[in-house]
Amino acid sequence: MIIVMKAGAAKRDKDVVLRRIKELGYTSHVIHGTTRDVIGAIGDERGKAALQALENLHGVENVLPILQPYKLASLEVKKESSIVKISDTLSIGGSQIVVMAGPCAVESEEQIIESALAVKKSGAQMLRGGAFKPRTSPYSFQGLEEEGLKLLAKARDLTGLPFVTEVINPETADMVADYADMLQIGARNSQNFALLKKVGQLGKPVLLKRGMAMTIQELLMSAEYIMSEGNQSVVLCERGIRTFETATRNTLDLSAIPVLKGKTHLPIVIDPSHGTGNHHYVVPMSYAAVAAGADGLIIEVHPDPEHASSDGAQSLKPAKFDVMMQKLRLFAEADGRTM
Amino acid sequence: MIIVMKAGAAKRDKDVVLRRIKELGYTSHVIHGTTRDVIGAIGDERGKAALQALENLHGVENVLPILQPYKLASLEVKKESSIVKISDTLSIGGSQIVVMAGPCAVESEEQIIESALAVKKSGAQMLRGGAFKPRTSPYSFQGLEEEGLKLLAKARDLTGLPFVTEVINPETADMVADYADMLQIGARNSQNFALLKKVGQLGKPVLLKRGMAMTIQELLMSAEYIMSEGNQSVVLCERGIRTFETATRNTLDLSAIPVLKGKTHLPIVIDPSHGTGNHHYVVPMSYAAVAAGADGLIIEVHPDPEHASSDGAQSLKPAKFDVMMQKLRLFAEADGRTM
Amino acid sequence: MIIVMKAGAAKRDKDVVLRRIKELGYTSHVIHGTTRDVIGAIGDERGKAALQALENLHGVENVLPILQPYKLASLEVKKESSIVKISDTLSIGGSQIVVMAGPCAVESEEQIIESALAVKKSGAQMLRGGAFKPRTSPYSFQGLEEEGLKLLAKARDLTGLPFVTEVINPETADMVADYADMLQIGARNSQNFALLKKVGQLGKPVLLKRGMAMTIQELLMSAEYIMSEGNQSVVLCERGIRTFETATRNTLDLSAIPVLKGKTHLPIVIDPSHGTGNHHYVVPMSYAAVAAGADGLIIEVHPDPEHASSDGAQSLKPAKFDVMMQKLRLFAEADGRTM
Amino acid sequence: MIIVMKAGAAKRDKDVVLRRIKELGYTSHVIHGTTRDVIGAIGDERGKAALQALENLHGVENVLPILQPYKLASLEVKKESSIVKISDTLSIGGSQIVVMAGPCAVESEEQIIESALAVKKSGAQMLRGGAFKPRTSPYSFQGLEEEGLKLLAKARDLTGLPFVTEVINPETADMVADYADMLQIGARNSQNFALLKKVGQLGKPVLLKRGMAMTIQELLMSAEYIMSEGNQSVVLCERGIRTFETATRNTLDLSAIPVLKGKTHLPIVIDPSHGTGNHHYVVPMSYAAVAAGADGLIIEVHPDPEHASSDGAQSLKPAKFDVMMQKLRLFAEADGRTM
Repeated sequence: MIIVMKAGAAKRDKDVVLRRIKELGYTSHVIHGTTRDVIGAIGDERGKAALQALENLHGVENVLPILQPYKLASLEVKKESSIVKISDTLSIGGSQIVVMAGPCAVESEEQIIESALAVKKSGAQMLRGGAFKPRTSPYSFQGLEEEGLKLLAKARDLTGLPFVTEVINPETADMVADYADMLQIGARNSQNFALLKKVGQLGKPVLLKRGMAMTIQELLMSAEYIMSEGNQSVVLCERGIRTFETATRNTLDLSAIPVLKGKTHLPIVIDPSHGTGNHHYVVPMSYAAVAAGADGLIIEVHPDPEHASSDGAQSLKPAKFDVMMQKLRLFAEADGRTM
Repeated sequence: MIIVMKAGAAKRDKDVVLRRIKELGYTSHVIHGTTRDVIGAIGDERGKAALQALENLHGVENVLPILQPYKLASLEVKKESSIVKISDTLSIGGSQIVVMAGPCAVESEEQIIESALAVKKSGAQMLRGGAFKPRTSPYSFQGLEEEGLKLLAKARDLTGLPFVTEVINPETADMVADYADMLQIGARNSQNFALLKKVGQLGKPVLLKRGMAMTIQELLMSAEYIMSEGNQSVVLCERGIRTFETATRNTLDLSAIPVLKGKTHLPIVIDPSHGTGNHHYVVPMSYAAVAAGADGLIIEVHPDPEHASSDGAQSLKPAKFDVMMQKLRLFAEADGRTM
Repeated sequence: MIIVMKAGAAKRDKDVVLRRIKELGYTSHVIHGTTRDVIGAIGDERGKAALQALENLHGVENVLPILQPYKLASLEVKKESSIVKISDTLSIGGSQIVVMAGPCAVESEEQIIESALAVKKSGAQMLRGGAFKPRTSPYSFQGLEEEGLKLLAKARDLTGLPFVTEVINPETADMVADYADMLQIGARNSQNFALLKKVGQLGKPVLLKRGMAMTIQELLMSAEYIMSEGNQSVVLCERGIRTFETATRNTLDLSAIPVLKGKTHLPIVIDPSHGTGNHHYVVPMSYAAVAAGADGLIIEVHPDPEHASSDGAQSLKPAKFDVMMQKLRLFAEADGRTM
Repeated sequence: MIIVMKAGAAKRDKDVVLRRIKELGYTSHVIHGTTRDVIGAIGDERGKAALQALENLHGVENVLPILQPYKLASLEVKKESSIVKISDTLSIGGSQIVVMAGPCAVESEEQIIESALAVKKSGAQMLRGGAFKPRTSPYSFQGLEEEGLKLLAKARDLTGLPFVTEVINPETADMVADYADMLQIGARNSQNFALLKKVGQLGKPVLLKRGMAMTIQELLMSAEYIMSEGNQSVVLCERGIRTFETATRNTLDLSAIPVLKGKTHLPIVIDPSHGTGNHHYVVPMSYAAVAAGADGLIIEVHPDPEHASSDGAQSLKPAKFDVMMQKLRLFAEADGRTM
C-alpha cells in the first residue's frame, strides 16, 4: 500500500500513520516529496482491508493499493495458461476454440433435442440451456428445474455434447452438479459468495460470468473464491457490462480478453447473446471475440426464437448459426487456431 | 406493448406480427403513421417476456413496453404509503425519520455494546451490524456468524434498540431471522432471487438494498419477489450506484427518493456510508437525504474506525455522529417531520 | 508519481526506468517490496504527461499519479473560500444561497419579462435564459441569438436581476459578454478548451457546468483552464452525470458538493432541472442541494412549460417555484444560512 | 410520439393532451388499454421537442419517441453504403480497409517524417498526427499548431500519404482545412455544435469521433449537424466510452459497428489506441474491429513512445505495428476484404 499524506500534514499525523502501519505488521518506508510525503507499507497486502482504513486518519489524503488482491487466479502464481477439462475429449483454454450453444431456457424435450442436434451439426462442442432461470420478474417463467436437467442429460446422451447449465442456489447446487458437465454462475450471482463457495466445493468445472457492474479485478476475486475452496477449473465469461448506451442491452467489453490474458491463466469465453441482446449483433461480435483471442463462445440458439419463453430477441436460428460457424472457422484459422 | 414496424415493412410482415399478438392472447390495434406503422398490443403485459421476442420478427424495428412490470410494489395497486412495523414502538414510513446506526461488522462484545450505547445516546432508533459479511475477497474477515448474532441480541437487550443485519444465504436465513428484527439484503444479493424468495417466506421486515448496477425499476422488481411470497414489510434502500466517478466509492443517487415516491408505497432509506465510502461525505449526504424526503438513514458508526475490520474509511466516530444527529433534527423540523 | 514494477522485473528494466525518471528532471526513490519494487518519482508532476508514458517501458506494471493536477483551483494554493462577485450587491460563495431562475431559452419579450418578474417576486437573485442554444438536433430551435441577449438585458433593466446566459462559440463570446453578467459554459462544452481559454480572457464571472462524463478532477482542470488565463471568477455547477439509470435524464451527483468543498475554494451551484430532467424531482433535489451545502441553485422556471420551445418537461411553473422558495428558506435557516 | 396516460387519468386530462397534439400539427389516435390509454401523435416528429413537453401535462405518465431524429445520416433516406473519398486513389467505406496511423501529436520534423515512412512501409494508407491538441490540463503540451500542419504536409509530400488532423476551434478551422486531407472532430468536441456547423461548411471529409458519454443516436445527430450544412463526407469513429471499468482508459464499444451498420450508410472507423489507452490491448482490439466489420482503423504509432509528449502509453512502436499489419491482412481476407 502507498499512503499519500496531505500537503503540510503535521509530524504527529505522520507518526500516527507510521505507528499504525507497524501495528498491522508492515514495514514502512517514507518518501519525502516536494509538497507532501508518501509512505510505502511493505508486506503482503492481500486480504488486509485494515490498511485502507488508514484513510480515516488525520492528515491522510488517500491510500493506494499496489498488489493485485488475488493469488490463485494470478499469472504471477501460475504462468502457463490453464486448460480446463470438460470431458475426456474436450477442454477449454488450448488452441481449439470451444463453442457452447443452445436455448436460453429448456422448454420441452422436443425443443432441447432439436437444439442439440442442430448446434452439434454446425460444429458446437457443448450444449447450453437453463433449467433454473434467474428472472428479473417473479411472474416470468422460472425454468423446468430438475425436469429440465433430465432433458439436458437426455440431449447429451443422444448427441454426445456435454452441457453447461446455471446454478442459482447453494441448496440445489448438488443436484445440478449430479447432472451437468459444467456449472454456470450467472451475472446476477457473480458476487453471491455463498454460492461461489459452494461450487468451489463441488468437483465440476465452473463458467463464471462477469456481473453487470463488476470490474475485471472483482471478477478475478470471485474466481478466487471458487479456487480458494479447492476447485481450480474456472472459466471466465464476459457477457456485457451496464453502461449508459441503450442501443444494446449491455455493452460487450471485448477488451476484457487482452486485459484478462495479461492478468490470469484462466480461459476466457465470450457471451455475445447477452452481451448485445440482439441476434443481429451476435454474429459480428462472435467474429470479433475470436479475433481478439477468446478461448470460446457461448451463444443462444433456438429453433423458434419468436416463440421462445425467454430472450427470444437475442437467439439465433439454427440456419443463421450454421452460416456463422463456417465463417468463424476462417477467423480461427487466420489466428492459427482450430474450432 | 407498442410494436414499432420498420419504415416500408411489407404487409406480410405486419400480418405475422398481428397473428403472433393474437396467439399470445392480446388484442392488436394499428396506428398508420406517416412513415411507418405502430401496433399496440392490448392486455396485461406483466410477466410476458414473450412479446419482447417479437423484435426477432422480420420488419419489426423495436418493441416498447408500456406498463410497469411490478404490481404489489406499485402505487397503482396501493395508493397510501406503507408503514413497516419493526417493533411495538417503532415503524418506518411515517412522519418520524428512523436512523439505524452501528458498525459495519460485529467484531467483539465490547465493540458492539459500545457502539449500541453510543448511537442510542445520540438518538438512533435501530442498531445495525454485520454477522455474515459478503466480502469481495475470500481472504477478508467474513464475520462472526452466529456468535455475531448473539452479540447483537445482547446489545439489543441492553439498549432496547431493535437491530438489522444481513442475510447472505438461504441456508442460514432462518437462523438469522431467529435473532434479528429486520433482515438486510445486501447490494450484491439484490438479484439473488433464491434469497429474495426465502426472505419473502420469513415473517420479518426486510431492508432491500439497491444493487450497484440496478435500475430503480429492477429494485422494485426485487421487492416484488419478496412481496409475491407473502411478505409485504419491505423497506427499500439506496446505497450508491456504480458510475465512472472515482472520487466517491459509489455515486449516491438521491433522486431515487422522489422517483420511488412517485412509483411505490414502500418506504425509502438512504445509506450514505456505502453511498460515498468516505466519512467526510456521510454527514452532508445525510442532511441531503432527509431534505429530499427519505424515510430513514442507515449509517456506519464505529468507536474506533482506524482499527475497524472493514469499511473503516467510511465509518463515523460516535462524537461526530452525535453532532450530526443534532443538526439532522433541524432539517427534519424544516421538513415538518420528527426524528 | 509512483511507478509500480512487475513482480520479478529484471534489474535492467528498473535501470531504464530510473534513467528515464532522471532525464525527465525527477529524483527517484526505490522501495523494495516483498514481491516487487515501487519507485517514487519526486518533483512537481503537474503538466507532465511524460511520466505516464513510462507505462510503456518493459517491466512496468503501472504508474500512479500522487498530486492533483490543478493548482489555481486547489485548496492547497488558496485556503479560504472564494466569493465570486456578480454585481455590486450580489456575490456567490458566502453565507447567502443564490438562486438563478428563468426559462431554458428566451422565446419572446413577453415570456422573458413574465419569467423575470415571477422569479424575482419569489426571491431569485439572478435570471437565467438561453440566447444561444446547443441543441442535440440541428432541426431544433437554436435560440434567438443577439435578439435574445437584448431581451435578457431588458428584463434585467426592469427587474434589477443580473443574468447568466450560455456562450457556445469563441467567435460570439465577446458579444455575449457585452450583455451578460455571467457567462455559462454548458455541459457539452465543458472540455471545449478553445472556449474555456476565451472566457478566461474576458472580464466576466463564469458558471462552468460539469460535463456528462466528466470526473470531478476533470471539472477542476477545466476551471484551471479559465483561471490560468487570468479569470479567477469561476463558479462550478453540478448538473447530473450520465449513468445507466433511465428513470431520470441524468443522475444528479450531490456528493460532488462535499467532494468539491474538500478540494477547491470555488463556489458550487446545483442544477436540479437538467440534473433530473423532470419537474417533479426538481423541488426535493433543490432542498437536498441546500442541505448538502450548495452555494446556489440554477432552476428552470417557465410561465407555460407545456408550450416551451425546449426542456418543458423539466421546467417549474412560477406558482410551484414560489412554494419551493418558501420551504427552501427553512432548509437554509436550518443550515445557518440565508437566501 | 406515443403519449402514455396514467392509469385512471381523468377525461379532461386526456382532452387537454388531444387538444395540444392538434395545436402542434399532429393527428392523434387513441388506443384504449386494459388499465390506461395510450395516444399516438401522427406526423413527422423530428425536430419537435415540443411534444416531449407534454410530459408536463397532468395525467401523462411519459412520452415515447418512435422515429429516429436523424434524416440525412439514416439508412432510410440512403440505402447504399457511402464511400467517402479522401484522395484520387483512396476512399473509406468500400471493400478496402483503411488504416490511418501516426503519432498522437506532431513533435518535430524528424519525428513525423520517421513515423510517416514507417507506417507507410507497413501498409497504412493515411497518416494521423495532432497539430492542435485538446489537452485536459492547460499546463500540458498544446501542439505545434500551424507549424505542425506544415510538417504534416511535408510528410505527405514525401510519402504520398494523405493526413487527418484535429480541428478544435471554428476560428482556426479554415487554416487546418487548407493543409489537411481530412478533419477530425475529437471526442471532447463531439457536441461542440458551433464547430460541427463550421466543418459542415468546409469542403473536406470529416472524421467524427464519438464522445465519451455519447449514445450512438447522439453520434448520428452530430453527423447530421455536419451533413445538414452540406458536407456529406462524414466518417464515424468509435474510440471508447466512459464506464466504471478502470483496467482500460475507456471501454471500446465494438458492438457500435453492427449497430451503426443497421442505422446509417456512413463508414465506421475504430480507434483502439484511445479506446483502450494501453498499447498491449491495441493489437487484439484492431483484429476484433476488422472481424466485426469496421471500415478502417486509426492507430497511434510513435518511433519512441517512452519519450512521446502525449499518450505514449497507448502508442505502438513501428516494429510492433508492422507485425500487426501482417496479421490484420489475414483477418481482412477471412472477411473477404482487402487492406
